[in-house]
Amino acid sequence: MPFIVSSAPMEAAAASSSPLSAFFSRPASRLRPRGFRFLALSLPFFGELHTQRCVALRPRYLRFSVAARSFGDKIVARPSSEFRKKQSSGSRTEDEKLRALRDLFSRPGIGIDAYIIPSQDAHQSEFIAECFMRRAYITGFTGSAGTAVITKEKAALWTDGRYFLQAEKQLSCDWKLMRSGNLGVPTTTEWLNDVLAPGCRVGIDPFLFSSDAAEELKEAISKKNHELVFIYDFNLVDEIWGESRPKPPMKWTRVHDIKYAGVDVSAKLSSLRSELMETGCTAIVISMLDEVAWLLNMRGNDVPHSPVFYSYLIVEVNSAQLFIDKAKVTMEVMDHLKSAGIELKPYESILSEIESLAAQGAKLWLDTSSVNAALVSRFKSACNKHLAKFENKARDKVDWETSPDMAPNKHQDARIEGPSGLYKPSPVILAKAVKNKAEIDGMRSCHFRDAAALAEFWAWMEEEIHNNAVPTEVEVADKLLEFRKKQAGFMDTSFDTISGYGANGAVIHYKPEPDSCSVVDDKNLFLLDSGGQYVDGTTDITRTVHFGEPTPQQKECFTRVLQGHIALDQAVFPEHTPGFVLDVLARSSLWKVGLDYRHGTGHGVGAALNVHEGPQSISFRYGNMAALQKGMVVSNEPGYYEDNSFGIRIENLLHVKEVKLPNCFGGIGYLGFEKLTFVPIQSKLVDISLLSPMEINWLNDYHSQVWDKVSPLLDGSAREWLWNNTRPLPAR
Amino acid sequence: MPFIVSSAPMEAAAASSSPLSAFFSRPASRLRPRGFRFLALSLPFFGELHTQRCVALRPRYLRFSVAARSFGDKIVARPSSEFRKKQSSGSRTEDEKLRALRDLFSRPGIGIDAYIIPSQDAHQSEFIAECFMRRAYITGFTGSAGTAVITKEKAALWTDGRYFLQAEKQLSCDWKLMRSGNLGVPTTTEWLNDVLAPGCRVGIDPFLFSSDAAEELKEAISKKNHELVFIYDFNLVDEIWGESRPKPPMKWTRVHDIKYAGVDVSAKLSSLRSELMETGCTAIVISMLDEVAWLLNMRGNDVPHSPVFYSYLIVEVNSAQLFIDKAKVTMEVMDHLKSAGIELKPYESILSEIESLAAQGAKLWLDTSSVNAALVSRFKSACNKHLAKFENKARDKVDWETSPDMAPNKHQDARIEGPSGLYKPSPVILAKAVKNKAEIDGMRSCHFRDAAALAEFWAWMEEEIHNNAVPTEVEVADKLLEFRKKQAGFMDTSFDTISGYGANGAVIHYKPEPDSCSVVDDKNLFLLDSGGQYVDGTTDITRTVHFGEPTPQQKECFTRVLQGHIALDQAVFPEHTPGFVLDVLARSSLWKVGLDYRHGTGHGVGAALNVHEGPQSISFRYGNMAALQKGMVVSNEPGYYEDNSFGIRIENLLHVKEVKLPNCFGGIGYLGFEKLTFVPIQSKLVDISLLSPMEINWLNDYHSQVWDKVSPLLDGSAREWLWNNTRPLPAR
Repeated sequence: MPFIVSSAPMEAAAASSSPLSAFFSRPASRLRPRGFRFLALSLPFFGELHTQRCVALRPRYLRFSVAARSFGDKIVARPSSEFRKKQSSGSRTEDEKLRALRDLFSRPGIGIDAYIIPSQDAHQSEFIAECFMRRAYITGFTGSAGTAVITKEKAALWTDGRYFLQAEKQLSCDWKLMRSGNLGVPTTTEWLNDVLAPGCRVGIDPFLFSSDAAEELKEAISKKNHELVFIYDFNLVDEIWGESRPKPPMKWTRVHDIKYAGVDVSAKLSSLRSELMETGCTAIVISMLDEVAWLLNMRGNDVPHSPVFYSYLIVEVNSAQLFIDKAKVTMEVMDHLKSAGIELKPYESILSEIESLAAQGAKLWLDTSSVNAALVSRFKSACNKHLAKFENKARDKVDWETSPDMAPNKHQDARIEGPSGLYKPSPVILAKAVKNKAEIDGMRSCHFRDAAALAEFWAWMEEEIHNNAVPTEVEVADKLLEFRKKQAGFMDTSFDTISGYGANGAVIHYKPEPDSCSVVDDKNLFLLDSGGQYVDGTTDITRTVHFGEPTPQQKECFTRVLQGHIALDQAVFPEHTPGFVLDVLARSSLWKVGLDYRHGTGHGVGAALNVHEGPQSISFRYGNMAALQKGMVVSNEPGYYEDNSFGIRIENLLHVKEVKLPNCFGGIGYLGFEKLTFVPIQSKLVDISLLSPMEINWLNDYHSQVWDKVSPLLDGSAREWLWNNTRPLPAR
Repeated sequence: MPFIVSSAPMEAAAASSSPLSAFFSRPASRLRPRGFRFLALSLPFFGELHTQRCVALRPRYLRFSVAARSFGDKIVARPSSEFRKKQSSGSRTEDEKLRALRDLFSRPGIGIDAYIIPSQDAHQSEFIAECFMRRAYITGFTGSAGTAVITKEKAALWTDGRYFLQAEKQLSCDWKLMRSGNLGVPTTTEWLNDVLAPGCRVGIDPFLFSSDAAEELKEAISKKNHELVFIYDFNLVDEIWGESRPKPPMKWTRVHDIKYAGVDVSAKLSSLRSELMETGCTAIVISMLDEVAWLLNMRGNDVPHSPVFYSYLIVEVNSAQLFIDKAKVTMEVMDHLKSAGIELKPYESILSEIESLAAQGAKLWLDTSSVNAALVSRFKSACNKHLAKFENKARDKVDWETSPDMAPNKHQDARIEGPSGLYKPSPVILAKAVKNKAEIDGMRSCHFRDAAALAEFWAWMEEEIHNNAVPTEVEVADKLLEFRKKQAGFMDTSFDTISGYGANGAVIHYKPEPDSCSVVDDKNLFLLDSGGQYVDGTTDITRTVHFGEPTPQQKECFTRVLQGHIALDQAVFPEHTPGFVLDVLARSSLWKVGLDYRHGTGHGVGAALNVHEGPQSISFRYGNMAALQKGMVVSNEPGYYEDNSFGIRIENLLHVKEVKLPNCFGGIGYLGFEKLTFVPIQSKLVDISLLSPMEINWLNDYHSQVWDKVSPLLDGSAREWLWNNTRPLPAR
């Protein structure tokens, strides 16, 4: 699945972006994404794409649930078509909700003139639980990206080009639709600065904004002397949502087996503690759900597509606390945590724990691009509150020093200085991105099974078309899920399947709906981008096929996309090379005839974790200086999209590995890629006359590997299909 | 000629860098290079190259003079071998000079504790006149790059790895050699902060530092409460150099014919004035010598290799003044300037004119990365001095406004606000880089003649080797100059010829000396990088040849360099693409076997102007966001260097042109390259088995073009040589 650029203006983006989006593109601002020091300077090279960003990719409003069971009897996702009912917005009308919300503005202790409602949860997750879809509840607009702003008189919703039509349909007349990215459309803060009299109070739920985003917001509205008010105690939307608000997810967590995790929790914590001590920190707060899951070798089921669970983690030099609802913790998980020395605390007690750390004089590492403003702000005020106490102690210390026997130990000594924060990207991001052998083995293994499921699916699909059945795009996606479910260790889709026939394939983030989607036949190209969450790994694959006769233009475009795919696949490059350096390799062949695509070429992928992860990416935005490193997994997905006509994308996952070469100029290592994905690329779509001998060899060799690795998992028609689709290209 | 990275620490670099170096790499600092907003963030990807920069590339200590005559009887350079005498350092010993300099420290009105002597002239030129080689005079060290710092007790010279041996030989025991880039070697300011007691006064000649460099210096030494003292009235080195100091160059300038310039001065000034008015400026100071020469369609002879003349230019909305020694201005030039409305002013009066602009309330555009600290600082203080006057006027203005007939016009109105500065890159940089049709025609034309000279040279060279003559590297360079001199319109070499046999070819910035250079024979590779200044254009070409039997390794390396050269040559890319995006194309083939090269792949080239110009570059530093634009000229010069063994580089100049394509995705233009250089590439060095059919076609097609374009200019053995060296590769 590609990461996608929408055209929200930067400041609206700031207010609504998930940190995931940050891995791919982020506007120039103080909102520096985690680990991407220079991303703020990224410069799109398309004239028409100005300040852009990537937003969460999947609509979050589906009542998507997965049955959480322990592995052995598999955890399976139910077909998404079963859940395509519009979310009920409870008994209140949109108008009543707005009125009720405004009534809260003047409640004692609140006293605000405006309230901003973003799409985020408290952990900047890409996929969120339904109970956190507050913006969808209050506006009625169910698209994945958007920010609502409500003043005493007005209400406006910002969303991007993908959702203009949907928002027009779903918003009541009380709401003004702000078409982000359109000329003359103000950002949320420009609008607030315009409609509010100077000196107003603008409220937010500080849990729903990263600290960096809140700072940016604060600065932007301070131009009109507005004050940003953090309302900690309750979320205004939840207050009026009341009883009809879905319950927070309460699925059991499970232990991620050491045979897949490769490194045990104690070792991971020990590495993290070394990093803490190197920086002089005494503790760190981890708030990104995939970081917690990776660090603790645990998985969960609280949100669709990502096997994570709502929680925070504080790691101190000698202890660690997991903030989680106890109901999610089985005995097995409890034992697992205990053996790594991890205490359980209630999820809600994170704030008071942060304050208590300040009281103890902690030096706390906080990644302000992901940790929410509530935690960071409370920590800062607690630091200020407790500083005096430590200054007094420091005075006492002078006496101790005169009597050596009573001198405090080194650890105490550091604390004597008083609490403080270190604000920099979490070290877990990189540790998680660089996979160990067991994680890579798991990724390899699940890709074989995923490939077997896809072979079965494509064989079925060809048969359907042959029989003049015309399955809909949604039926196709459901059928694919059926085949995946049969594979060992399958748990969930890793994102909503993009099943796009003809013109729908040109909509990069297309999401078919049962009542409006196309049927798939043999008259045009069919693009299928899908992925699975397995117990041992995560997959993400796109293939584009034609069941009839492709046009010469379609073949040329497909072939040029394939040439880009091959060029990136075959790249060899020195260590320390940022991903964007390789992006041109995937585009060169398209550029030669004046074609291009408006998304990045590669994103990081987690090992049995999030399908989008950083810090690495391969993109035409040149700001992400994160180097590709041995052990990372990255997608290779060039494409071409002809608006209103067809879409082409060819996506494999690649493992970054060291390559043995005859030289090593500069005394450094050279890296290359190992393919993880083994699914045939449709030869029918290749214009062989455009390919070089090397490229022809690449395709033949790839198909020969596909046969060798996947055929043992198949029989019958799927095996036959695989055989037919892995034959060498005819000689020119 | 490649632009080269040395390893001076960034802050020493800041003090000594020429702005030219900024086009290629610049350390992270406030010293933002001109037009390169993001360069400060460039990150070398080789572990061993930390904070690096490019320094002026040619030693400047040669008594190099060119006889300036008007075109018709050609202006020719004399063979550089005639001038390879070490510069006389006058009658004083280094010891006496130091003592004399320190005596000046305590002169009334000076009162300094240290003095910094950089390598620059007042215009941040790459090549400078001998009278400005103050650092060489005071230290005895004649390398092109270095900074001298003298305190009352100590004297130290910073230079980079290229010059360690030379500096060890040339420095007396009074000087400490600071090996920039070596571990633990402090920067100039770190050293000053270390050796001086806090609160000292550190003197500089503010003409010799860009304003940005001086600001950086000031900030760095303020950490120890040192004060940076600008000594405007005289240069301490000149004071002790006295009578033996060479006279400032006083060569006649000439008009650069409109048939080569393409656009007349009035039109250029008119464009510049539009830019001034758009920004609300009333005037701009141009201090880079190539910018002045380009803007005024004039050329000069004040420094070797670059056809420029010492001058400043101030362009106001309704007038313009050229600050130049009148002795350089012929009647023809005078008429030329008059017809464009340009007044002459003495070179030395620039400071007082700047002050007078402030007095008149000018809003002055100053490019602080190139304009020297003397001018910027004087302007700022004059602004402060005159501000009060304008505030009074503003009060009077209120009265005028009540009587409409007396209201000042718009222009006056702007001035009423008082003088101020706009500090941003000069708009002339980009205007100069984007060549017009006449400039490109001139570049094409001079490249044909240059190619003819090279064909004659290579034919001679082969004959020499065949006859077992073993010319030295210097003799070879002199002979090449002889052949170039015979071509119409030749004026000078565009840089010192890099004539490197065997291991010398691996020294990227090799400069052969008559008493130490190698002979050239048929046992190893010979690398020849050279260029010419012609009346109509500038050339820069590198070829690598073997007169005997190359080893398989040499052939493989050469072929991979050639593949990189071809890949870049053939690139097609969307408008707005920064050059660094294409750099990987030139390296990919080398990377595949673990090879690389430590210089950029392409630099801008002036049209009958400097051989290195910005803003564009094609480099593995990813900070230069300047896009390649239609009309720019850029070098294509990948290489490979095997230390102590051989060097390979293949360099052509390319013209960035729009390409007609079947599509234009995104509605923008696509660009590609037109070759300007037409000299055979030695087929003997090509391992055909490594080449793709496309690459074989490229080479054959190139050689066929070389024959077609250059053979009409040749006869005899040179024509025969060209025929033999442009034959198609044998079929595989």
